[in-house]
Amino acid sequence: MIGCPMQTVTRPLVDFLASSRWEDVPDDVRHAAKRSILNCFGAALGGSQDAAVKGVLAVLDRFSGPRGATVTGHAIRLDMLSAAFVNAASGNVFDFDDTHHPTIIHPTAPVAPALFALAESRVTTGQELLHAFVLGVEVECRLGNAVTPWHYKRGWHITSTCGVFGAAAAAAKVLGLDAQQMLWALGNASAQSSGLIETLGTMAKSIGVGASARGGLSAALFAEAGVTGPAEPIAGPRGFTSVMGHGADLAAISEGLGKTWELHANTHKPYPCGVVLFPVIDACLDLRAQNPGLDLDAITEIKVEGHSLLRERTDRPSVITGREAQVSAQHSVAVALIEGLAGVAQFEDAIVNRADILALRSKVHVRERAGTSVEAAHVTITLADGRTLHSLVEQGRGTPQRPMSDADIEAKVRDLAKYGCPTLDPSPLIDAIWSLESSRDAGTVMRLAST
Amino acid sequence: MIGCPMQTVTRPLVDFLASSRWEDVPDDVRHAAKRSILNCFGAALGGSQDAAVKGVLAVLDRFSGPRGATVTGHAIRLDMLSAAFVNAASGNVFDFDDTHHPTIIHPTAPVAPALFALAESRVTTGQELLHAFVLGVEVECRLGNAVTPWHYKRGWHITSTCGVFGAAAAAAKVLGLDAQQMLWALGNASAQSSGLIETLGTMAKSIGVGASARGGLSAALFAEAGVTGPAEPIAGPRGFTSVMGHGADLAAISEGLGKTWELHANTHKPYPCGVVLFPVIDACLDLRAQNPGLDLDAITEIKVEGHSLLRERTDRPSVITGREAQVSAQHSVAVALIEGLAGVAQFEDAIVNRADILALRSKVHVRERAGTSVEAAHVTITLADGRTLHSLVEQGRGTPQRPMSDADIEAKVRDLAKYGCPTLDPSPLIDAIWSLESSRDAGTVMRLAST
Repeated sequence: MIGCPMQTVTRPLVDFLASSRWEDVPDDVRHAAKRSILNCFGAALGGSQDAAVKGVLAVLDRFSGPRGATVTGHAIRLDMLSAAFVNAASGNVFDFDDTHHPTIIHPTAPVAPALFALAESRVTTGQELLHAFVLGVEVECRLGNAVTPWHYKRGWHITSTCGVFGAAAAAAKVLGLDAQQMLWALGNASAQSSGLIETLGTMAKSIGVGASARGGLSAALFAEAGVTGPAEPIAGPRGFTSVMGHGADLAAISEGLGKTWELHANTHKPYPCGVVLFPVIDACLDLRAQNPGLDLDAITEIKVEGHSLLRERTDRPSVITGREAQVSAQHSVAVALIEGLAGVAQFEDAIVNRADILALRSKVHVRERAGTSVEAAHVTITLADGRTLHSLVEQGRGTPQRPMSDADIEAKVRDLAKYGCPTLDPSPLIDAIWSLESSRDAGTVMRLAST
Repeated sequence: MIGCPMQTVTRPLVDFLASSRWEDVPDDVRHAAKRSILNCFGAALGGSQDAAVKGVLAVLDRFSGPRGATVTGHAIRLDMLSAAFVNAASGNVFDFDDTHHPTIIHPTAPVAPALFALAESRVTTGQELLHAFVLGVEVECRLGNAVTPWHYKRGWHITSTCGVFGAAAAAAKVLGLDAQQMLWALGNASAQSSGLIETLGTMAKSIGVGASARGGLSAALFAEAGVTGPAEPIAGPRGFTSVMGHGADLAAISEGLGKTWELHANTHKPYPCGVVLFPVIDACLDLRAQNPGLDLDAITEIKVEGHSLLRERTDRPSVITGREAQVSAQHSVAVALIEGLAGVAQFEDAIVNRADILALRSKVHVRERAGTSVEAAHVTITLADGRTLHSLVEQGRGTPQRPMSDADIEAKVRDLAKYGCPTLDPSPLIDAIWSLESSRDAGTVMRLAST
């Protein structure tokens, strides 16, 4: 492609990565990093016993090298590349990890597991790890911004395809690579960028996500060992944005580096189900809290009203599996009112067909209500004595406009830990992540996530 | 995508793979398989000391699990997944391995290393290994046929992107997976299909090829452990041919299974340089053989004539590096006449600037000659006494019309072994591959490729 004009984006990106200092990262970004890491540890503890994770772990255990790295939610240890794979898989398996709002990348799952696995073999301070994490998320989400929306619509699982670059950049920073080596690391990552939407809903999704963490970490290690890459792996004529994008917005990669931070656009899900159901569940939990002792048997009808999308996507009265229940308003309302919770345990196969859930969900009707925004929902309960209880939620929790509080995230992590690893006390882990900035050896955090 | 009409190609493919018997594989296909494997061992021995391979090996060695598998051309051993990675990288690093003519896939490098690594830990007869190899090549090349030419032109390194499916299918056959598990194996492979043309000419290319062998082998092992995949990973609306192809020819995947064999379209390069130079080198070697004692100092001019593409691509009188020399007619003519060889040693950096090569190459002129096909070349040597020597080659060796003989391939393997591993005697390895069909334990072949 000699003589072909080409926009250079990788060079300014690696110059930024190499020269970035911890002091340059604003306080609110540092805090957002800790929230994201904490949330992902919770998701990984909750997902650690999932069949996909156990299957992957069983295979990688057979081929593990020196077992320097912790597997979240397990007693077993693996070499760092394999641990990064498994921990990324468990972090994302429920899609209950963080979501970068503009791209729907789950940014933490590929990046944090690579970093923590590396930190267990190479003393890394909490500041170094957080700094590298911030930069890794910045790279993966900026690449995502550049190829959004075409990339995901085309069928790319953007968490995996962009995650491998994020993991490579983050690991390269901890390894102290110079700008040229970082360029090679991104080139080595580009050779491994993969992940298809067709695999979503199957265990193979976790192969893509795990491979992105492993591939990114290995890409940085290969670069450290002198494995070279192309000059422009991202925007070259046969590079990432050209092949896996269409009309990519390259400015989204290089403009405002160090001034804007993608972690500000990161969100955390309060419930492991479809986003349009969040305000519905909020409304049910509110009604339950406002009406202690509410007799569920006395309910004659529950009306759920909202934007047309709410009805189109979630009016599913007859679901059978937990996966289907994740997009059922009827099921979500029933568990929220009966259990007062809407965590992973409330979307398992076992609960979906429980008699009390079936009885209550049969009373739920979903309707469109003109003038209701897609972020909002009305829930109206009619009782046998004719009384009605009503709740309107304008914005569901976990949306960019109404982020989960730190305490909400902590509670979520405790719930997930209890679900996936009931014998593990998550408190020391939670404390260690909140105080990561003062840690001299961030790798020690991983031992607190081990059973 | 419920209700979306979808052509099913993966199911008939895995049904074919699962039900295929060794007895169904014709003799000429079996023989082609052995030729391809032998050629790839040669390429891997020759490439085993390349900087890209050594860099990859240095990293993977640190994380190796139980060292059950041989690294071609090295004394070190690795776990099977890592060995598959390194041996695929060395097999392809010079692009001197086999070439599937319709797609330019290098089919053997991702598939054979995965199989031999597996065979070292799990007793596999030579027939079982050859059978699985034939099937793996069939899968990867049929996928390649389906997405050719769009896929490569778009920027996909087709050896890597399709190779991961071939390695998965081959490993799945050796593991004795049933059709459903094979479907999962291909799904797990689809999540790892990657490789960008932008990386060609850099070491990162070998990361893509290595990852395809490792990823494919792991995909089959994951499937064996119960890691599920989608129902239609290849032709689903967000599957391989939809996302990484455009207007893919799905019939190319499922039609004629068991009746036509892609190994028939496989070719072997006699020289590690551009294909258009093959007839030029052949002509020079012919002239040298026909004129023993030819005084090279007495040459006043060497005219190379052929198709316009020959001049456009290879008229490069001033090359400096070995990589550039691979597309220089001037250099190719000089080494062929002086050394009587055109192997990897003749395209190294060191030889390119040697005084005698520079002197002779300055006498070479490349011209278009109307009516000459792209497969042909004329070479005319003019001597100081006015005599001329002329050779016309209509078809270069190594083209589909003029395949390398078994003896040619053997000689190439010996040359490559001498180049990369001068202390290794390749004869036992060559004999073992030719007699693979009678081997009770194909994994023992690998020990003959170890130094």
